[in-house]
Amino acid sequence: MFEMITNGSVTDPKGFKAAGIHANIKKKKKDMALIFSDYPCSAAGTFTLNKVKAAPILLSQYLINQKSKVRAILINSGNANACTGQQGYNDALETQSYLAQKTGINQSEVLVSSTGVIGEKLPMDKMLAGIDSVIPQLSYTGGIDAAEAIMTTDITMKNFGAKVKLSGGEVTIGCICKGSGMIMPNMATMLAFVTTDAIIEQYLLQRMLSESVNLSFNRISVDGETSTNDMVILLANGASGIKLEEQNSDYLAFKNALDHLCILMAKSVASDGEGASKLVTVNVKSAKNLHQANLAAKAICNSPLVKTAVYGNDANWGRIISAVGNSGIEFDPDKVSVKFGDMDILQPNYQSGFDEEEAKKKLDSKEVTITVDLDYGDADTTWWTCDFTEGYIKINASYRS
Amino acid sequence: MFEMITNGSVTDPKGFKAAGIHANIKKKKKDMALIFSDYPCSAAGTFTLNKVKAAPILLSQYLINQKSKVRAILINSGNANACTGQQGYNDALETQSYLAQKTGINQSEVLVSSTGVIGEKLPMDKMLAGIDSVIPQLSYTGGIDAAEAIMTTDITMKNFGAKVKLSGGEVTIGCICKGSGMIMPNMATMLAFVTTDAIIEQYLLQRMLSESVNLSFNRISVDGETSTNDMVILLANGASGIKLEEQNSDYLAFKNALDHLCILMAKSVASDGEGASKLVTVNVKSAKNLHQANLAAKAICNSPLVKTAVYGNDANWGRIISAVGNSGIEFDPDKVSVKFGDMDILQPNYQSGFDEEEAKKKLDSKEVTITVDLDYGDADTTWWTCDFTEGYIKINASYRS
Repeated sequence: MFEMITNGSVTDPKGFKAAGIHANIKKKKKDMALIFSDYPCSAAGTFTLNKVKAAPILLSQYLINQKSKVRAILINSGNANACTGQQGYNDALETQSYLAQKTGINQSEVLVSSTGVIGEKLPMDKMLAGIDSVIPQLSYTGGIDAAEAIMTTDITMKNFGAKVKLSGGEVTIGCICKGSGMIMPNMATMLAFVTTDAIIEQYLLQRMLSESVNLSFNRISVDGETSTNDMVILLANGASGIKLEEQNSDYLAFKNALDHLCILMAKSVASDGEGASKLVTVNVKSAKNLHQANLAAKAICNSPLVKTAVYGNDANWGRIISAVGNSGIEFDPDKVSVKFGDMDILQPNYQSGFDEEEAKKKLDSKEVTITVDLDYGDADTTWWTCDFTEGYIKINASYRS
Repeated sequence: MFEMITNGSVTDPKGFKAAGIHANIKKKKKDMALIFSDYPCSAAGTFTLNKVKAAPILLSQYLINQKSKVRAILINSGNANACTGQQGYNDALETQSYLAQKTGINQSEVLVSSTGVIGEKLPMDKMLAGIDSVIPQLSYTGGIDAAEAIMTTDITMKNFGAKVKLSGGEVTIGCICKGSGMIMPNMATMLAFVTTDAIIEQYLLQRMLSESVNLSFNRISVDGETSTNDMVILLANGASGIKLEEQNSDYLAFKNALDHLCILMAKSVASDGEGASKLVTVNVKSAKNLHQANLAAKAICNSPLVKTAVYGNDANWGRIISAVGNSGIEFDPDKVSVKFGDMDILQPNYQSGFDEEEAKKKLDSKEVTITVDLDYGDADTTWWTCDFTEGYIKINASYRS
């Protein structure tokens, strides 16, 4: 049982402050966010599997692996601090150290995260001046400013929150994230930050986060590109005084809300993919096993031909079948059926006598659902992607990510 | 030693006729080609590894596997005869049988090939009428008409030929092919047809073709999509009276010319990729082994972010490194260097002090070469791709492939 919070964010849970400011890394827009907890938090994280990892990934992943308690996350946009070598790592360390010193917490309690241009040195004068400016702005309602400050080519802010009723009372979960290109999280994700005031031990927190990420961020793709800077962080500061234990009904209630929020974030990233005009939900049903269901869904979500057909409102089921054929899974093409929404497009043995105009209407919508039934086993999955438009080309032919 | 033939094609080798006509499958353009040999040919082929295989793939692959002698290849564009089930296979058989009957050859001597829309039944009335029309058009200079008739969204015709000097005299190789979307041949390729008048046994012909395809068609990608209809066919009719034996200098001379022609065809497909404005040559050097070199090059060739950056003349080496990081290969990011043409863009340890304007000029060209040196082993490879433009989106949002 949980209830969504209107315009929720990371400052909804008790004891979390945040702020977002313009630190001159970008020309005009906000580019630095700080999330700060009044109490030390259990911290869990998932990180990019790209072999090229940005400096803030290396540093924050190290701290999460050490099961370090966390008080603060400093995030900058406009510069990814990726492919910056030893200098980049030193810059991340110096940023961390400076923030710790100015806020009176331990250096190991600070996570850092960056997103933006790859291969440029972090502008340290701006970073340190930004830290001086952002700290006094921290407030218990600053989560929205933080959500704004982590955006890059995102068009919409991505912030959510939920209240979860547990046996001992109510706890809150809040979150913010950003997309919107270089998106095909690989057992990891782009930037997302989740806070809660529940008391949760680190091992349990990490398990819950990993499970939720597998059901959400690991099931979206904008362009098949896994970034060098992906991370999701979940902080639990315990300010509600309510503790989650393993595997009881409270745990399940909390996990249910966390899954819901992660899926909302993941869908918001897919629907705000670079240049996107539509959110596309891809259901793959009756695959041999879950791994194969996910491979098939991923292949559909990564197919530029499927995504351009959706953009053009073209009921081109052949491209969907061809994408599944290239996914490496076991299936029998003769058994496949395809639906757009609730409309039959293809039935087994390649029977496809549908009304083209009606199918066009199904596709001419902000939200499109494609369901592919393989009739080959009992594993189902759902992924999300967006259509593929000239906007993606325009953005990425000019934006240096 | 070989010499290129100006405007070469499949009718340059002795004893091959061809024709290309409009059979009303497409609205206006030529859509049916026939290649016909005066003598039975040894025939080799490579075929798509997409699990969804079009009917003509199933039929032609069966014949090649049977080591059937071949006299004719009938190709139509405008309809792929893919995802058409048993009916599609029967239609392919009927086409084959009708052509055999009308030309007085055995049914097993006819290969069939189709390209175009997936999931629509082959229009048999038009196919059979087309066969009646195309046969009288066969001529010893018809190779160019055939090259035109197999085009789909191709902008340029793709036809080549070479004369090879062997110890016993001269043999000729001619070829035609088409692209230009759904291109990431996977140990197979799109449509390409190669003829020669040399005498070559089937096992040797197949080995040569497979090797050449691995060095050419299997090293290009337009959009990471492997089609349901890819095939390359090599016919040797022996009309020159000159026989190739295994592993002597004649064999090597012939193989050298075949490699060259296949690479020319592959590059012509990449540079005429849907919407492409540039041919991009990707060299990966000093990888751990050839498999890993190919994985890295393929990842770069498939990266929409690299390809949009090339389109936008943006010297965005970070996206190249990120693509390699996602390719699954072993390497040390600190050791990587990148060149555009002969210009150093990135040197080891992320040293990247290059002149942005000069780099822009390197990219603002119809042909761009990217060289990534991993300094991690001794395996090199070269792949080809194109840039990624609004044209690709426009074509595929409207064209039903």
